Amino acid sequence: MEKTVQLYEGKAKKVFATNDENLCIVSYKDDATAFNGLKKGTIMGKGAINNRVTNHLMKLLEKNGIPTHFVEELSDRETVVKKVSIVPLEVIVRNIAAGSLAKRLGLSEGTKMSRTVLEFCYKDDALGDPMVNDYHILAMGFATEEELKLISDYSLKINKILSDYLKDVNIELIDFKLEFGKTSDGTIVLADEISPDTCRFWDSTTGEKLDKDRFRRDLGGVEDAYNEILKRLLGE
Amino acid sequence: MEKTVQLYEGKAKKVFATNDENLCIVSYKDDATAFNGLKKGTIMGKGAINNRVTNHLMKLLEKNGIPTHFVEELSDRETVVKKVSIVPLEVIVRNIAAGSLAKRLGLSEGTKMSRTVLEFCYKDDALGDPMVNDYHILAMGFATEEELKLISDYSLKINKILSDYLKDVNIELIDFKLEFGKTSDGTIVLADEISPDTCRFWDSTTGEKLDKDRFRRDLGGVEDAYNEILKRLLGE
Ligand SMILES: Nc1ncnc2c1ncn2[C@@H]1O[C@H](COP(=O)(O)OP(=O)(O)O)[C@@H](O)[C@H]1O
Ligand SMILES: Nc1ncnc2c1ncn2[C@@H]1O[C@H](COP(=O)(O)OP(=O)(O)O)[C@@H](O)[C@H]1O
Ligand SMILES: [Mg+2]
Ligand SMILES: [Mg+2]
Repeated sequence: MEKTVQLYEGKAKKVFATNDENLCIVSYKDDATAFNGLKKGTIMGKGAINNRVTNHLMKLLEKNGIPTHFVEELSDRETVVKKVSIVPLEVIVRNIAAGSLAKRLGLSEGTKMSRTVLEFCYKDDALGDPMVNDYHILAMGFATEEELKLISDYSLKINKILSDYLKDVNIELIDFKLEFGKTSDGTIVLADEISPDTCRFWDSTTGEKLDKDRFRRDLGGVEDAYNEILKRLLGE
Repeated sequence: MEKTVQLYEGKAKKVFATNDENLCIVSYKDDATAFNGLKKGTIMGKGAINNRVTNHLMKLLEKNGIPTHFVEELSDRETVVKKVSIVPLEVIVRNIAAGSLAKRLGLSEGTKMSRTVLEFCYKDDALGDPMVNDYHILAMGFATEEELKLISDYSLKINKILSDYLKDVNIELIDFKLEFGKTSDGTIVLADEISPDTCRFWDSTTGEKLDKDRFRRDLGGVEDAYNEILKRLLGE
C-alpha cells in the first residue's frame, strides 16, 4: 500500500490518501495548539508518543468489542487507518469536573460527577466548536437518531474500558474527547486519536496532571508527562 | 388574601408572600434588562402588558391541559400565583433560528429548524445561565429524569398550543423561554411569564419584530410593539 496525496492537515496530524481508496495514512505531528489555535507550540516527541498510545488503546478497545479505524502501525509517527467520513461532533466524556465544564458550572476542578457526563460539540473551528444537544444534532442533521444512540453507547463503553485499564497503571481518567466516523459501507467506527492531547490523565495517587493541560497552563514538564504516559501504557 | 413581605426582586418582577403560604403575588415592573443585566432601561407600560399577556396565555394553556401557577389577576400589574420552588432551568423552545442559537451555529436569523429545538440553561445569573444538556441536569440534580421528561413534554405541547393560537392573530412564534416550578405537593407547573420579554414574536406577513429584540437591538418602537401584542391578543 502506497501513500499518495495529502488529504488535509489538521492541528495535530496530517492525513494522506493511499492507493487503496478505503484506507488512509495518519501522520502525527509534534505541533501543539490550545484554545482553538490561539496558543501554539511544539512538544518534542509528541507525535510519536500519541501515535503509539492511540494505537495501543485502539487495539485494547477492538479486543473489547468497539469497532475502530485502526489498521496497522507503519512507523513511529505513521499509522494506516480506515478512511472515514468524520461525524462532525466531538464527544466529550467526563467523570470528574475539569476544564470548561468546571468553569461553566462553577465547580471546583476535581469534583466527581454523580454520573458520567457526555457532551457533544459541533466540530467547526470557525464557530469555536459550540456545544450542542440532541435536538440541535437531529435538527441540523449532524447525526441521525440511530447514529447518536450508537455513538453515545460506544462512548460510555469506551469510558468503562479505558477507566478500568488505566486504573491498573495508577492513572485516573478525568475526561476525554472522541471522534467517530463512517466507513464506506456506513459502519460507525471510533476514529481520530486517544492520547494525552485528547484526554485528561491524573496520577491516581498524587493527582499530578499527565496530559496537555501541562502545555495549556504552562505547568512545565510537558515532555516528561507524555513520556510517563508512554511508559505506563507500553512499558517503555 | 393579603400581601405580606417581599420574597425577592428579579429583573422584571417582584414576588411577595401572602398570608396563604401556598400563594404569592407577582408584581410586574417596567424595568428592562438585556445581555445578563449589562444593558438597562425602562419600557413604559411593559409591566402591565406583560402581566395581562402572561395571564391570558396561561389561561389558554390551562384550558388545553397544561398545569400553570396562575390563580387570579389582581390588578394591571399584580397577579396571584401558586408559590413554587423554581426548577433551576430555563427551557428555550425554538422553531426558527434567531438570537444566540443563530450566532452559535452560524445560521442566518430566520432559518426554519427542521424540527423544534429545546435547550436548557442552568438558571444562575453569576454563571451567565450556561447551557446544559440532559447529562449535566441529571448529574447536577437540577431535575430528576421524570421531571425532565415532563418538562420537555409540556414545553413541546405549549409550543404547539401557542404557535397555533398566535398564527390566528398573524404572529409567528420564533422562540420562547419557559420556567417550571414545583408546588408544595410536588406537582410540576408552568411558572414565571410568557410575554414579549420572553418570546420572539414576528409579524407573520412583514416579519417585523414585536418583542424585546426591539429594546436589545435599539430598533425603536419598543412600546408600540408591546402594545401591538396586547391588542392582537386581548383585542384592546
Ligand atoms: N480515519 C480517519 N479518516 C479520515 N479522517 C480522519 C480519520 N481520523 C481522524 N480524521 C481527521 O483527521 C483530521 C486531522 O486531525 P487533527 O490534526 O487532530 O485535526 P484537528 O485540527 O481537527 O484537531 C481531523 O479532522 C480528524 O477528524
Ligand atoms: N410561581 C412562582 N413562585 C415563586 N417564584 C416564582 C414564580 N414564578 C416566577 N418566579 C420567580 O420570580 C423571580 C422574579 O422574576 P424575574 O424578575 O423575571 O426574575 P429574573 O431576574 O430571574 O428574570 C424569578 O426568579 C422567577 O423564577
Ligand atoms: Mg484533533
Ligand atoms: Mg425573568
